[in-house]
Amino acid sequence: MEQNRIRVAITQGDVNGIGYEVILKAFEDPTMLELCTPIIYGSPKVMTYHRKTLNLETSFTIIGSAAEAIPGKINVINCNEDEVKVEFGKPSRESGKSAFEALEKAMIDYKEGLYDILVTAPIHKEMIQSEGFTFPGHTEYIEQSLGDGDKALMILASERLRVALVTGHVPIAKISSILTKELIEEKIQLFNTSLKTDFGIGAPRIAVLGLNPHAGDGGVIGMEEENIIIPAISAMREQGVICYGPFPADGFMGNNLYTHFDGVLAMYHDQGLTPFKVLAMDEGVNFTAGLPIVRTSPDHGTAFDIAGKGEASENSFRQAIYMGIDIYRNRKNEADASRNPLRKLYFEKRDDSDRLKLD
Amino acid sequence: MEQNRIRVAITQGDVNGIGYEVILKAFEDPTMLELCTPIIYGSPKVMTYHRKTLNLETSFTIIGSAAEAIPGKINVINCNEDEVKVEFGKPSRESGKSAFEALEKAMIDYKEGLYDILVTAPIHKEMIQSEGFTFPGHTEYIEQSLGDGDKALMILASERLRVALVTGHVPIAKISSILTKELIEEKIQLFNTSLKTDFGIGAPRIAVLGLNPHAGDGGVIGMEEENIIIPAISAMREQGVICYGPFPADGFMGNNLYTHFDGVLAMYHDQGLTPFKVLAMDEGVNFTAGLPIVRTSPDHGTAFDIAGKGEASENSFRQAIYMGIDIYRNRKNEADASRNPLRKLYFEKRDDSDRLKLD
Repeated sequence: MEQNRIRVAITQGDVNGIGYEVILKAFEDPTMLELCTPIIYGSPKVMTYHRKTLNLETSFTIIGSAAEAIPGKINVINCNEDEVKVEFGKPSRESGKSAFEALEKAMIDYKEGLYDILVTAPIHKEMIQSEGFTFPGHTEYIEQSLGDGDKALMILASERLRVALVTGHVPIAKISSILTKELIEEKIQLFNTSLKTDFGIGAPRIAVLGLNPHAGDGGVIGMEEENIIIPAISAMREQGVICYGPFPADGFMGNNLYTHFDGVLAMYHDQGLTPFKVLAMDEGVNFTAGLPIVRTSPDHGTAFDIAGKGEASENSFRQAIYMGIDIYRNRKNEADASRNPLRKLYFEKRDDSDRLKLD
Repeated sequence: MEQNRIRVAITQGDVNGIGYEVILKAFEDPTMLELCTPIIYGSPKVMTYHRKTLNLETSFTIIGSAAEAIPGKINVINCNEDEVKVEFGKPSRESGKSAFEALEKAMIDYKEGLYDILVTAPIHKEMIQSEGFTFPGHTEYIEQSLGDGDKALMILASERLRVALVTGHVPIAKISSILTKELIEEKIQLFNTSLKTDFGIGAPRIAVLGLNPHAGDGGVIGMEEENIIIPAISAMREQGVICYGPFPADGFMGNNLYTHFDGVLAMYHDQGLTPFKVLAMDEGVNFTAGLPIVRTSPDHGTAFDIAGKGEASENSFRQAIYMGIDIYRNRKNEADASRNPLRKLYFEKRDDSDRLKLD
């Protein structure tokens, strides 16, 4: 049994935010260690400091390498060369650097096969910028580091709603120029595959939102729906994907139409994330689909305003671990199930096409 | 008493949508007529057809002009030259034309002082386009027709939340080029005045959202926050307006931070309306602030998918009437209260500056 526990790498995120708080709180419950073996990429000293400040009792074990991770323990690897000073609620270059070092080490270890899934605590996207990190967020960095050329799809998921984004950390001014029929098709395809393989849904139904107010109102408010989005939906339907739209974002979400679909594809960040967070802030999980690695994170940020105060809810972080494990298992089951397919039985004797001849 | 009933003009909107259904249902309750005298701009024939189809019993009176409106009755003016054919759920040029004719007549009558407030049923924004109507929505058309050069501000309001928009029916691709420091300042100012005068809030607190994901994350995802929005907020604070921001839309709405503010200023349509509708779809009202006329509407559209089926909820439409009446009264009270201000008592004898000298 011990050998079967899923190894969960957890990066510390920004040490001045609520990252360690949600990590420590999530693993306060000992049953979590029966489910998985956590390997925390960060700093034992900083973790101790957070634990003391927050008056928590979660104990952990320091290891030198992820290969030494001990099932049943909370394993911590030191990734920071220098001493890291914690200043709750204050973004700093120092905290950005230590967040990056943890992330970088986790990338190397994934390639070595030292863990199964990755859960990232929130970073401060301005402070982490450096020579090694010139990305607007985790998703883009991981896509580049571990994607093997595959494209990532950002999915926000909860029990009630799954939202994926065509464009992620892109300024509003640039969205329209980035949107193409091909990009939307690619994202619909990725979403469809992920809903099947990662979430275990047989024939997923996908709703596609419009870009403009009222989904363009027939071309009165922008032409992207007519020129790009509708053709992309049609093309994917022809390929057998069950997708509908484009829907106006406000009415679609306000009228709870999302309850009729397995996934909602939004054109940009705030269009998808704002209603998602209104509906599912506390239990929402950010999942990076489309890559070989299973990576999840909570749907909140560093929350500097409440850092060090003990007020943070660990629920979203815990859900991120659960969902990561579920997705890892679903992928494994899918792979196992399709390893030895049955021989096709319906070939005509003198015809090896794979069409069933009924006449 | 009869003379004091507020005269409410109601335009029929698109006759193939749910406009007449919500009008008829709202006035099924006879106490509505003690509150106001409705004058419906539309077609008595079409209204009868809807009433019959929906099996409703609301009776009404046909009048030739708004000047003849009878308190205690539902007054209907015929605004359509031609016979109008109703085809539930089908957008048509004919229904667009009849919607426009009703709206046009209501504009003329307002200038004649024939009613107090205007409540508009939803139009189909593509089908209403014609020589006389080249606007993306009601708000822009009414601003042009009755604004006297004043600028309109679109406010979505419910008991829990008020959201105003800096840009309205604008394609996503054009938002950034339209946003200026001056425009944001103008909208903050309008919002502040409306919250005071129309909603009766003494010292309103306004939250301003960012434009980009994560409100630009310090410049990593777009520069509008740094260059335009933050300077606009600072300038308005110097003028004594209580405003804060810019906040990232997703976290702000998801964490319920809006409960700490009297109003939330969004940069664009879906950013404000999507979370608003998720939180307040059924009771939300669209109010056009900043103009001499008080105009409200429900926050839903023509809802062609359920037109003629009797499934529409009239709640938002009824709230639109209530809110219009409240705002009309608040404006009147404000005007009455400030008509004869007390003489200032704190001038120094030989100094007529309005500064209180305490030394």
